[in-house]
Amino acid sequence: MTYCVGLRLRRGLVFMSDTRTNAGVDNFSTTKKMFTWEVPGERVITLMTAGNLATTQALISLLEERSKTPSERSPSILERPTMFEVARLVGATLKEVIADTTGAGPAASSRFKASVIVGGQVKGGLPTLFLIYPEGNFIEVTEDAPFFQIGEAKYGKPILVRAYDPDLSFEDTIRLLMVSFDSTIKANLSVGLPLDLQIYANDSFTIEEQSRVEADDAYYQSISESWGDALRNALMDLPPYKRA
Amino acid sequence: MTYCVGLRLRRGLVFMSDTRTNAGVDNFSTTKKMFTWEVPGERVITLMTAGNLATTQALISLLEERSKTPSERSPSILERPTMFEVARLVGATLKEVIADTTGAGPAASSRFKASVIVGGQVKGGLPTLFLIYPEGNFIEVTEDAPFFQIGEAKYGKPILVRAYDPDLSFEDTIRLLMVSFDSTIKANLSVGLPLDLQIYANDSFTIEEQSRVEADDAYYQSISESWGDALRNALMDLPPYKRA
Repeated sequence: MTYCVGLRLRRGLVFMSDTRTNAGVDNFSTTKKMFTWEVPGERVITLMTAGNLATTQALISLLEERSKTPSERSPSILERPTMFEVARLVGATLKEVIADTTGAGPAASSRFKASVIVGGQVKGGLPTLFLIYPEGNFIEVTEDAPFFQIGEAKYGKPILVRAYDPDLSFEDTIRLLMVSFDSTIKANLSVGLPLDLQIYANDSFTIEEQSRVEADDAYYQSISESWGDALRNALMDLPPYKRA
Repeated sequence: MTYCVGLRLRRGLVFMSDTRTNAGVDNFSTTKKMFTWEVPGERVITLMTAGNLATTQALISLLEERSKTPSERSPSILERPTMFEVARLVGATLKEVIADTTGAGPAASSRFKASVIVGGQVKGGLPTLFLIYPEGNFIEVTEDAPFFQIGEAKYGKPILVRAYDPDLSFEDTIRLLMVSFDSTIKANLSVGLPLDLQIYANDSFTIEEQSRVEADDAYYQSISESWGDALRNALMDLPPYKRA
């Protein structure tokens, strides 16, 4: 499984992804699921993947390759004029990879599906996020739905729904995301540390912060440990139940 | 879908279930999913169901019918000597219902599976809870795993994991469960109010409290409204993130 969140604030975009991949509980490893294309001053595009690893690796490889060989027929992710066109390109490439796999040849019992969050900003446009489906189509964030989750989304969703605010600082957003990831990691063995983290500030056209939260990260540990107490205290602050 | 939780405390058992059933988002209604058999002074047995409604209704009807006709070959739920034997009876009856449905005749695209939480106390034994699978086998609560959830379990699990304590009072447990149900109801349309609630105190052999939390219940509303603020305050109490 996987857990990735992409979130739009008034001041910019924040991305967080876990790094665990597994094919059964006895076969797991650490793999990066966050990828970035940057043309400083002109565009920053960040992409996170969930689903079949062969599919998502082929997707990234094709996007990479085609951004380096301009003679390739398919246009480069570095040259699409808008984020909408970037999303269309990623969607078409994802669909192409899945179609290639599911055509002739031996069939696997597991499916080859994958989902993608892609976000960023291209000069001349606004920063935005898209959620791309295995079918190649996609939806964009809105004021009413300002974040996307892919993978194991349920455990970490209630805290995001309750505590997200478009005016959050980057620091408070990271703290919120760490709580959301911690709830998920505690509940599903197939989501695991380290976490990749990226911040993009509006109209900067460069990555503001990119870092990896390792399993022994002192700050993550302190969040994980204090959140249980904080939740219990929050419960105690609620009005008490009185029996009839 | 459905959401039910059965929870063992040092002082007794607490059960909560929602009441929404649906076959598609345009076809839903309110159905009780909590059922009780009581022989005051001798036994209290409470059962909650999730899954195919035809299956769970048939299960309850068979258990009811067989508790009223002593000549029926299968033994009555009111006469099994221990909670373990009650769980075996419920498991066998559930398996029988599913086998009857999946035999000859037209096949449905949806499956006939159901899961059950059964708990209570029979004189001479301890109060306990079992989670019964569609295959008819079951597991029992332990010190390490002191509660069971069936149905849409993920959204409401993190708060249970963090805030459950075997020494909780019944009142604090109900408050905790309401928060867990509220998180689920906010995230999944197929889980809905009203909620059924039941409390059993150890060695009382009678139901201590049984009530229904309606959609306009003032206490539930106050919990639902204050929990967002409480969570945001809890987040603010966590150590702040400092960027490198």
